[in-house]
Amino acid sequence: KVLWTVLVTMLGYASSLPVGEDALCTAEELAKYRIIFTGKWSQTSFPKQYPLYRPPAQWSSLLGVTHSSDYSMWKKNEYASNGVRDFAEKGEAWALMKEIEEAGEKIQSVHGIFSAPAISSGTGHTSTELEVHPRHPLVSFVVRIVPSPDWFVGIDSLNLCEGDHWMDEVAVDLFPYDAGTDSGFTFSSPNFATIPQDIVTEITCSSPSHPANSFYYPKLKILPPIAQVTMVKLKKSQLGLSAPFINLPAKSNEIIDTVS
Amino acid sequence: KVLWTVLVTMLGYASSLPVGEDALCTAEELAKYRIIFTGKWSQTSFPKQYPLYRPPAQWSSLLGVTHSSDYSMWKKNEYASNGVRDFAEKGEAWALMKEIEEAGEKIQSVHGIFSAPAISSGTGHTSTELEVHPRHPLVSFVVRIVPSPDWFVGIDSLNLCEGDHWMDEVAVDLFPYDAGTDSGFTFSSPNFATIPQDIVTEITCSSPSHPANSFYYPKLKILPPIAQVTMVKLKKSQLGLSAPFINLPAKSNEIIDTVS
Repeated sequence: KVLWTVLVTMLGYASSLPVGEDALCTAEELAKYRIIFTGKWSQTSFPKQYPLYRPPAQWSSLLGVTHSSDYSMWKKNEYASNGVRDFAEKGEAWALMKEIEEAGEKIQSVHGIFSAPAISSGTGHTSTELEVHPRHPLVSFVVRIVPSPDWFVGIDSLNLCEGDHWMDEVAVDLFPYDAGTDSGFTFSSPNFATIPQDIVTEITCSSPSHPANSFYYPKLKILPPIAQVTMVKLKKSQLGLSAPFINLPAKSNEIIDTVS
Repeated sequence: KVLWTVLVTMLGYASSLPVGEDALCTAEELAKYRIIFTGKWSQTSFPKQYPLYRPPAQWSSLLGVTHSSDYSMWKKNEYASNGVRDFAEKGEAWALMKEIEEAGEKIQSVHGIFSAPAISSGTGHTSTELEVHPRHPLVSFVVRIVPSPDWFVGIDSLNLCEGDHWMDEVAVDLFPYDAGTDSGFTFSSPNFATIPQDIVTEITCSSPSHPANSFYYPKLKILPPIAQVTMVKLKKSQLGLSAPFINLPAKSNEIIDTVS
């Protein structure tokens, strides 16, 4: 139970912190983490246009990568790759997996790919393990918001290494992003390609500044986090046999409030 | 390209072969495999009631486990666990992941969980890596057929070990199963719980023997495979940095026909 206490919480971290590209990681060889993604997209927190049917609010598979600063999966204010576009628009992971693979082969900037199963409702958990390496200490991932035009949540290049050691635990609140490839304004907007493609932007309660926007809540200062991710370093004894779930609840839709 | 040639093909393997529970595996410590799942659910092969809208034909995340004969994820003609029911009906993986974790903790029958991203159409690929151990040489997985009442494809306890060595490559054609928990007859049937729960059954072109059944093709002798899975042993040199995709096509929906 103690492990589940959040030691490090970076509210609204997303891609706004500097990556520390030059910071040398001198940690021990490899580290394994359990990554737990928690959807917090409830009708209570996000009442506007909350999708109830065909499909109801849910989350796609999680697709992630551990890498060096020579690779970037996605970045705020830059153009999304074709792979990120396919994933953000349709939850189709193949092109993105191929992009990652090529980056791994050509410039050895990738350590590994990881994925976790989809979540069939707006609130709930999913989880998997990931491995980082001193030369590849960064973690990026994306999860598509379903339904949506091209909206996703994710992490861009979070460094799990702090000098000579690996962080024990990191929790990050997640907020919605627009991949800039589909001009839909609401969760259930029909497909409408953005030409020319726009950059990746954060969606806030005031931007896009239009009442039709599904996340437009003019009375709020900031949106509540729509999801949260926690990465917990696995002890040596926890490696190998099965993957410890760190006393998570038995049911996916019991929300764990880690941030008091 | 040579690696992609299928060395071992077990048509309709599914769960019909004996598992060889007593066969001792004396292979080297661990082996890693790339597992590639290919959806072959096209409108050409399965014209009847092929789902085109809300949602169109697609595949859920793949959820799998490497284990010993003391664990079983699912078995033909037996009752599905609650976790398999949640997954087959809704694509919700959490309960099944918790079941696997508990089997790993209590009876050490599980080596690891793996998952691969969903596929957004009826044809296409997804892929991930898995690790087997001489004491845990069996592979099981499930992928939900979307939309469907509680239908899935998968593998039950495929043994990757052959005496003193690991198989180089295995390809298996996959056919649909009914989890026995929802009485819907067609892809888009509304939810209708089966009470009492029924056992897991294979769906064939003649069973259930009713014209309303989405897979009922009275003129066929057997259904074409609706999916295929290939597991390729990774060489030592392929381990660590990224995950080689073995020259798969750039686009997910290019069908690779491995079986001539």
